[in-house]
Amino acid sequence: MKQKRFMLPESEIPTHWYNILADMKTKPQPPLNPKTKEPLKAEDLFPIFCEECSRQEMNDKDAWIEIPAEVREKYAYYRSTPLVRAYGLEEAIGTKCHIYFKNESVSPIGSHKLNSALPQAYYCKKEGITNITTETGAGQWGAALSYAASVFGLEAAVYQVKISYEQKPYRRSIMQVFGANVTPSPSMSTRAGKDIITKDPNHTGSLGTAISEAVELATMTPNCKYTLGSVLNHVALHQSVIGLEAEKQMAMAGEYPDVVIGCFGGGSNFGGIAFPFMRHNILEGKTTRFVAAEPSSCPKLTKGVFKYDFADESGYTPLLPMFTLGHRFKPANIHAGGLRFHGAGMIVSQLLKDGLMEAVDIDQLETFEAGVMFAKAEGIVPAPESCHAIAAAIREAKAHKDEEKVILFNLSGHGLIDMAAYDQYLAGNLQNHEISQDEVNANIEADKLD
Amino acid sequence: MKQKRFMLPESEIPTHWYNILADMKTKPQPPLNPKTKEPLKAEDLFPIFCEECSRQEMNDKDAWIEIPAEVREKYAYYRSTPLVRAYGLEEAIGTKCHIYFKNESVSPIGSHKLNSALPQAYYCKKEGITNITTETGAGQWGAALSYAASVFGLEAAVYQVKISYEQKPYRRSIMQVFGANVTPSPSMSTRAGKDIITKDPNHTGSLGTAISEAVELATMTPNCKYTLGSVLNHVALHQSVIGLEAEKQMAMAGEYPDVVIGCFGGGSNFGGIAFPFMRHNILEGKTTRFVAAEPSSCPKLTKGVFKYDFADESGYTPLLPMFTLGHRFKPANIHAGGLRFHGAGMIVSQLLKDGLMEAVDIDQLETFEAGVMFAKAEGIVPAPESCHAIAAAIREAKAHKDEEKVILFNLSGHGLIDMAAYDQYLAGNLQNHEISQDEVNANIEADKLD
Repeated sequence: MKQKRFMLPESEIPTHWYNILADMKTKPQPPLNPKTKEPLKAEDLFPIFCEECSRQEMNDKDAWIEIPAEVREKYAYYRSTPLVRAYGLEEAIGTKCHIYFKNESVSPIGSHKLNSALPQAYYCKKEGITNITTETGAGQWGAALSYAASVFGLEAAVYQVKISYEQKPYRRSIMQVFGANVTPSPSMSTRAGKDIITKDPNHTGSLGTAISEAVELATMTPNCKYTLGSVLNHVALHQSVIGLEAEKQMAMAGEYPDVVIGCFGGGSNFGGIAFPFMRHNILEGKTTRFVAAEPSSCPKLTKGVFKYDFADESGYTPLLPMFTLGHRFKPANIHAGGLRFHGAGMIVSQLLKDGLMEAVDIDQLETFEAGVMFAKAEGIVPAPESCHAIAAAIREAKAHKDEEKVILFNLSGHGLIDMAAYDQYLAGNLQNHEISQDEVNANIEADKLD
Repeated sequence: MKQKRFMLPESEIPTHWYNILADMKTKPQPPLNPKTKEPLKAEDLFPIFCEECSRQEMNDKDAWIEIPAEVREKYAYYRSTPLVRAYGLEEAIGTKCHIYFKNESVSPIGSHKLNSALPQAYYCKKEGITNITTETGAGQWGAALSYAASVFGLEAAVYQVKISYEQKPYRRSIMQVFGANVTPSPSMSTRAGKDIITKDPNHTGSLGTAISEAVELATMTPNCKYTLGSVLNHVALHQSVIGLEAEKQMAMAGEYPDVVIGCFGGGSNFGGIAFPFMRHNILEGKTTRFVAAEPSSCPKLTKGVFKYDFADESGYTPLLPMFTLGHRFKPANIHAGGLRFHGAGMIVSQLLKDGLMEAVDIDQLETFEAGVMFAKAEGIVPAPESCHAIAAAIREAKAHKDEEKVILFNLSGHGLIDMAAYDQYLAGNLQNHEISQDEVNANIEADKLD
C-alpha cells in the first residue's frame, strides 16, 4: 500500500526556528519611525510588542533561533502536523504530478496560526505582561491567540473585523470559550475606531482598522502588549516550523518539491512553508519555485506598488517597505477574510522584488471550485483562504499534467467554520471581485493626498 | 520533555477489526423478525443492508475480520489518530491520575464516524449498489457517510433529524459539499414521515423517525441500501479500530487503562474504544472498568428496561434485545444530538446486563462545564456528545485524585460546528433535562398499548 501520510515523532519536532533574514543576500530596507523617518531599532518597538518579539523582528544575524522548551511542550499538543500525499486530488485532476500538502488544519484551532500565538503569548508572560491585544480577520488568528492567552494565563482582548464578526459568529464563540474579550472593529471603544466610524458609519472593517484599534488599546493600557498574526518578520520566523517539518517529511517520502505554494494574506503561512525550502535556493543554488496565491480582490503582490506604507488604516504602525495597495484600501467582502490585507510582509516584498518567488492572483469562484474538488477528493473541507493555495496547486498540476513534478502546498486551515460561504457558492450566489490596475493606482494616489 | 502525543506509523494501523461477539461468554439473544418473531438470519437483512454488513452483523464466530485493503487505504487519510496525554486537563483538575484521550476529532469529518462509513460504502460499491441512504442526528454520521459515498462513487440520501437540521445548518452544508441529498426528518417524502407528521405536525424529529424514513427509501428504491452509524454489531466492529490503535499507543506510553470511558448514543464510539480492551477482561481476567456516559435526558442504560424493541419510531426494523426507553421515546432537544437515541446496541445491552461494564448519566450543564474546562486546558473545543465522556473522566479523576489511576476516554469529535450550543451555555441559557424513572416507565407502558 502506498504511504499517504508522513508524521514525525515528537523527538523530531524542530528545536529551532529558521530566520531567513540572516541568509538573505539583499536585506529588506529598515522599517521607519513615521514621525522622524529614522530607521527603527528594536527598542522602538518595545511600547507595542514584547521585548523578545521586538528583538526577533530586527534580528538579521542569526539564522537559527531556539524554540523555548515551554513553547515546544505546547507545540507537542498538535505537532508534527501530517504531510499528506494527495492521491485523491491527483486522480481527480488527472495529473502525473505528485501533490503533497502540509495539513495545518489539524491544529486544535483548525489553522497554522497557533504556531506564532503560543510563542508570542509565552514571551509576554515571561516578561511579566498580563494583558494582550490583537486584531483578527476571519478569526483564525484571534482564536489561536485566545487559546494561547488562556494557556499562559493572560487576558486577551481581540478586535475582529466587523464583516467577519457578523459572517462567522462561531469564531467569536470559540474565542469566548477560551475566555477572550471580542469586539467588532471599527468600534467606538478607541479613538481610531471612532474616527473611522465618523468618516464612514457603514465601514465593514478591515485588518487595517482592527490593527489600529488593538495597537491603540495596547499602548494606552498598562502592562499590555500587542500581538500580530502575520506580516511581521518574527511571525514568519515562528511559522518556519511548518516548512522545517515538511522538509523532513518530504525526505521521508523520498521527494523534494519542484514548487512550493501558500495562500497569501500577510505572509505568515506562505513564509512558514516556503522559507525553509528557499534557504536551499539561496545557499545551495536549488531551483525550487515559490508561489504565493492571493485573491484577485486584494492583489498587492501582483498589482500593488513597492513603497513605504503603514500596516494599519490609521497610521499608528511603523512605516514598512512593502508591496501595498495603500493602507486605506478597502477590500471586497470575500470569504477569505484572512487574505483581506492591503500589504505584504517586508521579507516577502523584498524576495518578490529580487525574483526569488512568484505571485498569482485568483478569483473567488475558482478558489471555491478548487475547495469543493479538494473536499471530495481528500475529505477535508478547506478554509476559503487555503482554497487559494489549492487552486494554485491545481493550476500547476494541470499545466504539467504529463510530468512527475512534485508540488507542495500548505493547507493552512479547515473551513468547517466557513460553511456559510460554501452554501453561497453551491447556491450560485458568490461573485468574483477582481480589481483592476487602474483602481489600485487610484487608491495609491489617494493615499498621497493625506 | 514529557511525551504528549503517541502516533502509530502507517504500518501499525490495524489490518483486522476486533469482533467481541465471538469472545462473549453469554451471546446476545438473536434479533427477531417483527412479524414471525423468528430469529433473523443474515439473509433476512439483505433487503435493507448490503450482504457483507449483514453477514458481519450476525457473525459471532470470528474474533478477527480483515479490513479490506481499499478501506485501509482510505483509513490512512487520517489514521492513526493521536493518543494524547491530557497533562493540561490533569493540572486543571488537580489530580494525580494519568488522563489519556484518543483524539478522533482529527478525522477529516471531525469525528470517529468515518471509521464505519468507509467500509459500509465500500462494501455497497463492491456489491454493485449505486445508492445509499441513512439517517443522521447531529450530522456527524451523515457527513461521514456523504464523504464515503463520494469517495466510492455512490449517490447518498441523508435524512437528518429536523431539530439538528435547523440547529446545525453547517453540517447540512458539509454533506452538500460532498454531494449528498439532505432532507429534514420527519418529512413528507416517505409514508413513515407523513404518518409521523399527521400525528404530530410539530415533531422535531429523532433518530427513530429518520431511520424509519431512510429504511423505507432503501427498501423502495432499486439498487439502494441503508447504512447505519451506530447501534448495530457491524458498526461496533468497524469502530474497533479506535481501541486497537489505542491499545498499541497506551503500550508506547508504557501504561494500561484502569478505566475506559466513552460517551453513549447507540454505542459506536463507546464500543470502538472499549471492546478491544474488554477482550483482556474476558480472556485474561484483567479488571479494567468500562464506563458509558449517557445524557440524563436520554438515560436508556441507567433507567431503561431490557426488552425486545424496535430501533426506529415506525417499527420497520427487526426487534432487537436491548436496553430501551421505548421506541417512541421523544428525547429533549439537548445539543448532543448524536446521543438522542432511545435504545442501546445488542452487544452493549448484554455486556451491561452481565456486569462487564457500567453506565452513568450526566446532566447537560455538567457536560458543557467539562467541555469548556477541556477546551481551555487542551485547546480542543469538544463536541457536545464528547463532553459527556470528558465529564465522566473528570468525575473519575476527582474521585481518585490522590491515586495514579490511568483513565482513557475517547474524544469522539470536535465541537466547531456546535458553537451555537457553547454560545447558549456561556450566556446561561442552557438547561438540564433529566427525566425520572417514573417518566421512563410511563413511556414503556405506552408502547405496550399499540
